[in-house]
Amino acid sequence: VVILLAPDADVVRVRAALQGLGLWTEPVSGAAGAVAGLEVLPHSRAVPREAIRQVSGVADVVERKSPHPLVDAQAGRAATVGRVQVGGGAPVVLMAGPCSAESEPQVTASARLVASVGGKLLRGGAYKPRTSPYGFQGHGREALAWLRRAADAHGLGLVTEVVDEAEVEAVAAVADLVQVGSRNMQNFGLLRAVGKTGRPVLLKRGMGARVSEWLLAGEHLLHAGAAAVIYCERGVVGFDPATRNLLDLGAVALLKHVHRLPVVVDVSHAAGRRDLIPPLARAAVAAGADGLLLEAHPDPSQALTDGPQALDPETLAALARDVVGGGP
Amino acid sequence: VVILLAPDADVVRVRAALQGLGLWTEPVSGAAGAVAGLEVLPHSRAVPREAIRQVSGVADVVERKSPHPLVDAQAGRAATVGRVQVGGGAPVVLMAGPCSAESEPQVTASARLVASVGGKLLRGGAYKPRTSPYGFQGHGREALAWLRRAADAHGLGLVTEVVDEAEVEAVAAVADLVQVGSRNMQNFGLLRAVGKTGRPVLLKRGMGARVSEWLLAGEHLLHAGAAAVIYCERGVVGFDPATRNLLDLGAVALLKHVHRLPVVVDVSHAAGRRDLIPPLARAAVAAGADGLLLEAHPDPSQALTDGPQALDPETLAALARDVVGGGP
Amino acid sequence: VVILLAPDADVVRVRAALQGLGLWTEPVSGAAGAVAGLEVLPHSRAVPREAIRQVSGVADVVERKSPHPLVDAQAGRAATVGRVQVGGGAPVVLMAGPCSAESEPQVTASARLVASVGGKLLRGGAYKPRTSPYGFQGHGREALAWLRRAADAHGLGLVTEVVDEAEVEAVAAVADLVQVGSRNMQNFGLLRAVGKTGRPVLLKRGMGARVSEWLLAGEHLLHAGAAAVIYCERGVVGFDPATRNLLDLGAVALLKHVHRLPVVVDVSHAAGRRDLIPPLARAAVAAGADGLLLEAHPDPSQALTDGPQALDPETLAALARDVVGGGP
Amino acid sequence: VVILLAPDADVVRVRAALQGLGLWTEPVSGAAGAVAGLEVLPHSRAVPREAIRQVSGVADVVERKSPHPLVDAQAGRAATVGRVQVGGGAPVVLMAGPCSAESEPQVTASARLVASVGGKLLRGGAYKPRTSPYGFQGHGREALAWLRRAADAHGLGLVTEVVDEAEVEAVAAVADLVQVGSRNMQNFGLLRAVGKTGRPVLLKRGMGARVSEWLLAGEHLLHAGAAAVIYCERGVVGFDPATRNLLDLGAVALLKHVHRLPVVVDVSHAAGRRDLIPPLARAAVAAGADGLLLEAHPDPSQALTDGPQALDPETLAALARDVVGGGP
Repeated sequence: VVILLAPDADVVRVRAALQGLGLWTEPVSGAAGAVAGLEVLPHSRAVPREAIRQVSGVADVVERKSPHPLVDAQAGRAATVGRVQVGGGAPVVLMAGPCSAESEPQVTASARLVASVGGKLLRGGAYKPRTSPYGFQGHGREALAWLRRAADAHGLGLVTEVVDEAEVEAVAAVADLVQVGSRNMQNFGLLRAVGKTGRPVLLKRGMGARVSEWLLAGEHLLHAGAAAVIYCERGVVGFDPATRNLLDLGAVALLKHVHRLPVVVDVSHAAGRRDLIPPLARAAVAAGADGLLLEAHPDPSQALTDGPQALDPETLAALARDVVGGGP
Repeated sequence: VVILLAPDADVVRVRAALQGLGLWTEPVSGAAGAVAGLEVLPHSRAVPREAIRQVSGVADVVERKSPHPLVDAQAGRAATVGRVQVGGGAPVVLMAGPCSAESEPQVTASARLVASVGGKLLRGGAYKPRTSPYGFQGHGREALAWLRRAADAHGLGLVTEVVDEAEVEAVAAVADLVQVGSRNMQNFGLLRAVGKTGRPVLLKRGMGARVSEWLLAGEHLLHAGAAAVIYCERGVVGFDPATRNLLDLGAVALLKHVHRLPVVVDVSHAAGRRDLIPPLARAAVAAGADGLLLEAHPDPSQALTDGPQALDPETLAALARDVVGGGP
Repeated sequence: VVILLAPDADVVRVRAALQGLGLWTEPVSGAAGAVAGLEVLPHSRAVPREAIRQVSGVADVVERKSPHPLVDAQAGRAATVGRVQVGGGAPVVLMAGPCSAESEPQVTASARLVASVGGKLLRGGAYKPRTSPYGFQGHGREALAWLRRAADAHGLGLVTEVVDEAEVEAVAAVADLVQVGSRNMQNFGLLRAVGKTGRPVLLKRGMGARVSEWLLAGEHLLHAGAAAVIYCERGVVGFDPATRNLLDLGAVALLKHVHRLPVVVDVSHAAGRRDLIPPLARAAVAAGADGLLLEAHPDPSQALTDGPQALDPETLAALARDVVGGGP
Repeated sequence: VVILLAPDADVVRVRAALQGLGLWTEPVSGAAGAVAGLEVLPHSRAVPREAIRQVSGVADVVERKSPHPLVDAQAGRAATVGRVQVGGGAPVVLMAGPCSAESEPQVTASARLVASVGGKLLRGGAYKPRTSPYGFQGHGREALAWLRRAADAHGLGLVTEVVDEAEVEAVAAVADLVQVGSRNMQNFGLLRAVGKTGRPVLLKRGMGARVSEWLLAGEHLLHAGAAAVIYCERGVVGFDPATRNLLDLGAVALLKHVHRLPVVVDVSHAAGRRDLIPPLARAAVAAGADGLLLEAHPDPSQALTDGPQALDPETLAALARDVVGGGP
């Protein structure tokens, strides 16, 4: 964004007025040498263009066209997921369940647990994208059926991940909210296929993805026909091994308060360690998250995947009471 | 950390028990081929060594000695700053004021503002470390006097930065809490000089510093004689220009809930933009911050430095009410 | 990796001997307090385990099993791509061509150019993964035919990207080397499908992918049946906008000199700017690259995608002479 | 940088011409809706402003003034260090020696080694900035004397680090090139004090410092009176623990080929492991480094600091022959 100045503008006064509005600016000059405009630095407050144009001495504000008009059109609106609203001022939504759907009894016990603490959606993986080809890859379609039955039995919606174009229809047939994982954030074929189903989508941020790229991945989904996109922050790569991933709550605040889009946080993957999940879950909600995605397991010691970061029933219940007022 | 196994240990059962405790482990083997131990991955829950040793099949737990015994000895204790306690279960402390001390009236107006919203410490820079040699470098000792008088007049403590060994005594003579900035986190000569004054120190994290290096910088301070170290997160470098710095609340949660050290967050520098400061301040407190450091100015449009990120009086008051219950 | 010490070991002497071998170590102790072992830090020189075991005072070396045995089995061997060898001591291979295959004449002119400067493989995209849904997505199968004809006409091999499982067979039918792009490095369904074709694969590193994850993605390919995997570094995310991506030649040196795997560098995407491509191409070869992937265009001003980073014919010719001794 | 367009400009043709020059551009529009200018993206080729202004349809090019005029004035000129020229087209300069000056015999043996392989400057630390307060901090002024005598005895120049303002005069009295370390890159008091000595300075890049900040740190030095600034890349923080630091040769190429400033690379700290130093040293020179800073020790197993990354005499000799044609 560049603010063009009127020929007689008082540069010092214009910059002070813009600073008052929360804008960081740097003067730019052309061949003639005089200040011709003010470049607005990216970490400035979001200010409507009209407000800038009204500052005395400003001739015009020139900027790039938004590359994601369909995403922008979602601003301020909730995403509807079955009977649940996410974002747009709706209460914080808890989505919880095991990392993997391991057996029908495990899924059923998980759904009972989630419902009992006030959760609205059951999560659980039927297809697991694994870093190693030798890891457990999920029970597939059989697990989809377990998840749907368990969700129905406890009055929950279902969010579950699809990792392959060939399985999109099967997943969309049972999921209220179709999840696209971090590793597939820019798998454009999958985005198109998921979008075409017309379902709402939970779009996880890639671990090395800029917010601008994440927004554009949502544009792919909406362009293909998705009913809505809920953005899910889950930690990005960082230089410090002290935490597993670097939870970027600045991005959450930006999506919620500036872009006004539905945004949830997967605290389990961001933290990677059980003792940091409750404080970071509270922080996510404070930063503006419209929902939380949490891994919980009836018995973490027996989980096939991600057990060390799964919450046990007591911790989940305490956290739910705290952040969503859930449970008895 | 490596867990050594008893010769007859059942590896699967030991790993399940450790997973139940929240530990991520990987088997390690030697020349003989059998599993000899379990390596604990860094993003595991903090579990007392005794609890691990009691798991059936565990022979011993071997690990490095902590490199920062003096820091560890602070665990669980509040830092005393004048009449204010920071950490150790004390209420959240608000530290606010202008980026730079620009004039005595500006400093006085700022102190009045801070006191009126329930702040406990006045902040303000007499010496400004500037990226460019051509920027405003601060009013120096004169400004120190303004700050002390204004703090006294409004019943506030004073936190202010020292950037030069030659000025350490002058700053320590007036400051209740001596600030060491991000760019000086590993300026060991300065750390020694500040430590020798015996004052409590606010130690900002370097923008590319790992938590392990930050803790060791605190060890330098305590080793030299500092009364206490309060860690201050202010955002680290990240790959996404969407926000100015990347606020690392995972590190805040780690310091507060695992290391149990006093930790505060400088939200102004982390966010860089005024519209994200309130939600990120709330998130910082939720993650475990014992205090907030905020830039505020009686009239941000007239600030000599950092005006675009300074809170105006109304926003500061609203935020203070929200996070520290301050003000009338 | 942990080195276990004999009960009577002289820790100081053992550490000195290991330091002499290039190992960074830290002592670890158990409940009894005495040093029981030495943890080897990750940035140590690669030293055969037998050499460590022979150090006086060392009882055993315990470590994790490699998670990628099929990749490890490639060590030291060249990948065969048609009539070309990549890695294993073969001369540096130049792979060049346009970002997108835009028309048959453009592809033909590109192939002529590549052949004339000593290139061995033609590159060019028939399917373009685009950040925005509104960008040019490639000419698809028609373009595959152009590429194959042009490569054949000039005695070149062909490397081209596949972005969708549905197109894997079509691409594998014409490409000598099937490219998996950065955004798909962990699209495991695509990796499986590509691996099943039994072709050699060029696997680009994800922009936020650790080397350990990249190696495992190669394991997915080999496990599914790929003939060989050539790793392609193309820059990772970094905190400095001074360059488009951060070219990680340390990773290239690691793959070539420690893992001894075939590795090439896509300098065009790493640099993003034409004036840095020649020096970084030379640096890539010096660090150990077995090949270079370069974007070149008969007329960069007319390129539909990535024109600003495409090399013009003269610059390509000069660079080729320099790094692969190519051309007349 | 924004390119303002003439009212009748053909935007498509202007962008094609600019793309031909290597510029990435995005159109910007104001209230009237029509394209008013083209924003030049940061990863574009460096093109003289006059060349852009001559493109038909371009009205003016507006941009920020350079914040470091004194640095810019160094462009294309060599830095003179005693009898040695660094940069400006001079041959690659080898600077080598131990991490720490441990004893006079060790320093003397090191100087003999460096001279024998064709090195021009002896390096070695008399003051060691250590992450921990309990590590070896260097022998101080005594070591300065050892270093000077050893350098003189073997016809070498001396580069050594200063970490404290109080020692600046003592260091400047013996060093031909005064080194400012990574941790002090923005210790502005130290920069001023070092600059005032009028000596040439080796300025290491901070581990989390952007190139723009690094250039400004050099401006601080020149503004205070430094004779010249030689920039030294030594690796930055990265997300991958596979290498100790992330060597940023893109920044080296940028400083050498775009800013045309003297730049050297400290490969030892960048790699951290002995087996990657030779290939990365060759890569650094290929990317444009005017010199190399290498840690070498007569017997790495006995080094007090950084032994695992020190080159032994044979490896240093082989590398020197390779990159600077040194030695017999």
